[in-house]
Amino acid sequence: MGGDFAPNSEVLGAIDAASEKPDTLELYLVGKESRIKELLKERNAFLENIKVVDAPDVISMEDSPTDTHKSKPNSSMNVAINLVKDKKADGAISAGNTGAFTANSILKLGRIPGVGRPTIGALFPTDKGTSLLCDVGAFVDCRANHLYEFGVMGSIYMSHIFKIDKPKIGLLNVGEEKSKGNEVTIEAYKLLENSKLNFIGNVEGSDLLKGKSDIVLCDGFTGNILLKFGESFVWLMKSKLIHMTEEGFFKKLWVGLISETMRNLVGGFDYQKHGGVPLLGVNGVCIVGHGKSSPLAIKNMIFRAEEMVSKEINKAIEEYLKLNPLN
Amino acid sequence: MGGDFAPNSEVLGAIDAASEKPDTLELYLVGKESRIKELLKERNAFLENIKVVDAPDVISMEDSPTDTHKSKPNSSMNVAINLVKDKKADGAISAGNTGAFTANSILKLGRIPGVGRPTIGALFPTDKGTSLLCDVGAFVDCRANHLYEFGVMGSIYMSHIFKIDKPKIGLLNVGEEKSKGNEVTIEAYKLLENSKLNFIGNVEGSDLLKGKSDIVLCDGFTGNILLKFGESFVWLMKSKLIHMTEEGFFKKLWVGLISETMRNLVGGFDYQKHGGVPLLGVNGVCIVGHGKSSPLAIKNMIFRAEEMVSKEINKAIEEYLKLNPLN
Repeated sequence: MGGDFAPNSEVLGAIDAASEKPDTLELYLVGKESRIKELLKERNAFLENIKVVDAPDVISMEDSPTDTHKSKPNSSMNVAINLVKDKKADGAISAGNTGAFTANSILKLGRIPGVGRPTIGALFPTDKGTSLLCDVGAFVDCRANHLYEFGVMGSIYMSHIFKIDKPKIGLLNVGEEKSKGNEVTIEAYKLLENSKLNFIGNVEGSDLLKGKSDIVLCDGFTGNILLKFGESFVWLMKSKLIHMTEEGFFKKLWVGLISETMRNLVGGFDYQKHGGVPLLGVNGVCIVGHGKSSPLAIKNMIFRAEEMVSKEINKAIEEYLKLNPLN
Repeated sequence: MGGDFAPNSEVLGAIDAASEKPDTLELYLVGKESRIKELLKERNAFLENIKVVDAPDVISMEDSPTDTHKSKPNSSMNVAINLVKDKKADGAISAGNTGAFTANSILKLGRIPGVGRPTIGALFPTDKGTSLLCDVGAFVDCRANHLYEFGVMGSIYMSHIFKIDKPKIGLLNVGEEKSKGNEVTIEAYKLLENSKLNFIGNVEGSDLLKGKSDIVLCDGFTGNILLKFGESFVWLMKSKLIHMTEEGFFKKLWVGLISETMRNLVGGFDYQKHGGVPLLGVNGVCIVGHGKSSPLAIKNMIFRAEEMVSKEINKAIEEYLKLNPLN
């Protein structure tokens, strides 16, 4: 119920997902029951694999993330996470308040054994394909061992989901040399270098879009700022194009022609394509979506959650950390 | 001598600058004397306001920034900074090793009284004009009082050089609320809020290109990564366009047409336009240029240095901090 277009996008996306995979998916739509049933009825969607679970409260974008488990226990978000906690569901997805979803998931589901800190990984397009940036804002700072864990989780995610053999891991830093950076990155470099991960060393801001590494590790402060900056770059391009259309008929025609090309160029940054991003390290499958998620994005989030469950990503993370603990 | 195209770009840029302002500029070209004189002769540039100062050594991009004052005291960079130290010159510019230029400038010239830490500010284009990002890598981390100082110096720079009345200052953070961020940003928010600066609060990664603030404050780690990421975004656009040209004749033609528009769109990110960026807080005017500086960029760096001298930016910073010290 917390997304910008909730519950419309959520219900429509769920109908599509449930229709496409009637035998393997069973969906609980958690939220205001009457509204959800109304939407299902409007669409004539009487699907056996969709059940509605009533949750009267809604967590808004203004709610303080860490308070909502107490202040709004009957919110759609908390009730959905409880379904996972009670083993009634295998995973939860949300397009609502990211901070609240992160905090409530960790609080209710706990962390995967061996994981000190969960992370939100964001997928971004590169010149070679797709890379994962961890962390993009689950926590504002982190220690060196957390960066190592992000490397482990990101590596397992990218190899299982994107089928990349031995994903290359880069540590985001201000220079290539081992001695560069702040205390945390210098220490993390040592941990990663001595690990079994495919660590390729430091990567700089200029290396990200070149796809130098499949996974880019950083603290949540840097990652969050970088992600939002990247999204806004696309916005600036569009804004400049619109500005040009005001300069006369030929410019307008020209912009019309150019727009399609621009869309191809920057389209990779449209993360509805991937639906949502995983909250890695939480002991349960949780997919975080954009507030503006479309029905297509919701459908893809559902499929991504299903994939994470069937490929047992969390079990793989637990086993890897058990075999390769930090001293 | 340390720039990628040195000393050619440097000498050609200096000839242009000296020719344009024969009455107000006096330039010392510091480096390998024979090579510089050869270049001047090739161009028939026998200008009265250009003098050559011999410096046999060259600091390379591989040299450790903090060692070069000892290992290469006779480098063009160190000899040039000495001219400022000895009051023979009013300012120094360099397209060489940024870290070495920063370290040597601070070491030899000291800091402006009241400044705890100098900063490199980078200019970037926004939807509204030009903003300044401080710090972009003079130091990897900083304390809250340093961010306040960056705000003071950035504010004076933008008001004097870009003629912006009461420049708006934003603190780069992961959210708008005062409570967001890490320890340093939370503390810095308080300092800025209680200052006389035109502090507009936190700005997010998505606000930068919108030009929400004229000055964006952050630590050098985040700023450096962000700056390099922004530059590489332009690179990705070009790379994708080139890729499209390989898909056939019509695409090729199309790309030829689109290139000009693209240049207009992303051209603002070409910082040769501004020539270089100031090293603010050092007790002497120092302008840092890109390794790939063209003659035009060098010329603009010289003019910017002259402007900083004539507008007495450093004196204004000293006076502001004397009147508005932190408790």
